[in-house]
Amino acid sequence: MTQEAANSLPPSPSLSQGLVSIFTGDGKGKTTAAIGTVIRAAGHGLRVFIVFFMKGKDYVHGEFAILSKLPNVTVASFGQMGWVRKDKVKPEHKEQAGLALAAARQAMLSGNFDLVVLDEVNVAVASKLVELDEVLRLIDDNPQNVELILTGRYADPRLVQRADLVTEMLMIKHPYTKGIKARKGIDY
Amino acid sequence: MTQEAANSLPPSPSLSQGLVSIFTGDGKGKTTAAIGTVIRAAGHGLRVFIVFFMKGKDYVHGEFAILSKLPNVTVASFGQMGWVRKDKVKPEHKEQAGLALAAARQAMLSGNFDLVVLDEVNVAVASKLVELDEVLRLIDDNPQNVELILTGRYADPRLVQRADLVTEMLMIKHPYTKGIKARKGIDY
Repeated sequence: MTQEAANSLPPSPSLSQGLVSIFTGDGKGKTTAAIGTVIRAAGHGLRVFIVFFMKGKDYVHGEFAILSKLPNVTVASFGQMGWVRKDKVKPEHKEQAGLALAAARQAMLSGNFDLVVLDEVNVAVASKLVELDEVLRLIDDNPQNVELILTGRYADPRLVQRADLVTEMLMIKHPYTKGIKARKGIDY
Repeated sequence: MTQEAANSLPPSPSLSQGLVSIFTGDGKGKTTAAIGTVIRAAGHGLRVFIVFFMKGKDYVHGEFAILSKLPNVTVASFGQMGWVRKDKVKPEHKEQAGLALAAARQAMLSGNFDLVVLDEVNVAVASKLVELDEVLRLIDDNPQNVELILTGRYADPRLVQRADLVTEMLMIKHPYTKGIKARKGIDY
């Protein structure tokens, strides 16, 4: 488990009402919006746990190195998973995704975090890396004072139904369609 | 002008191809996605300038205090503007918005920044705080190696047409419709 130190800033405010939010759709900005929320929350002294389902160690250590350095933010990822094609799922991918879900659940129930982000969990569900029922159970067991954010395209309708806030990021225009490739520092 | 120190981290990578992105729509996640991009870019050592059009000093100093503390990130806001209703626009609001646009332009042309974010500029255009033509001119004059991000609902079709990437954040479900108010640390 890759887990960066969570320095706590006393006194920590707490949420009186945590909600469940989903960022889904084919447009850019899902993980990015989750990261933005993490920054906002950390800026207010809330304690944040973020676990990456479809992004391996390198990704987390590169792109989100800055997140790990923030006080009150704990970043977790398991294995070198990265993106897994639905038809190329191996047992170790399921194991890693299972560990990620368990870590999110533990963080959510620990009382040590105000915001728990499950990045790309929707894709993990769609790719059968984790069971939908497990994620629904996570939502059902969410304490009132913990905010949950689930990201990734293909959000299951039952997750959407259970969430309090759902934003669909809709691709109106994307440079990839013009043949422009993803650029380091901006897109990843 | 509220401008926090931009510490530079040598050596700074640079963008070979800067694009123009717009985050618009009525859903949650527009500014949040821009902030997420700022974090990503800063994490890679890119130099970022972000100016807030519809958010006053208090907002920037509270919510985005953490941004100002990041190396390579310069945060700017003008006056105590905050949200301005279209029918309550005063000359000083226009002046402040004009200063914000001028600052963005200066940052974009200075060679000192790789990413320039104009937060809520779409709303500023829709509220006639700044002229659409001025923003179009900004886009036209954007150097090839500077990334521009424009956020806010009501993005003018001519801005959408000119942008390389446009994401519409679509509100599928929002807790406000259930009477739940915005919560500090999460929503603002």
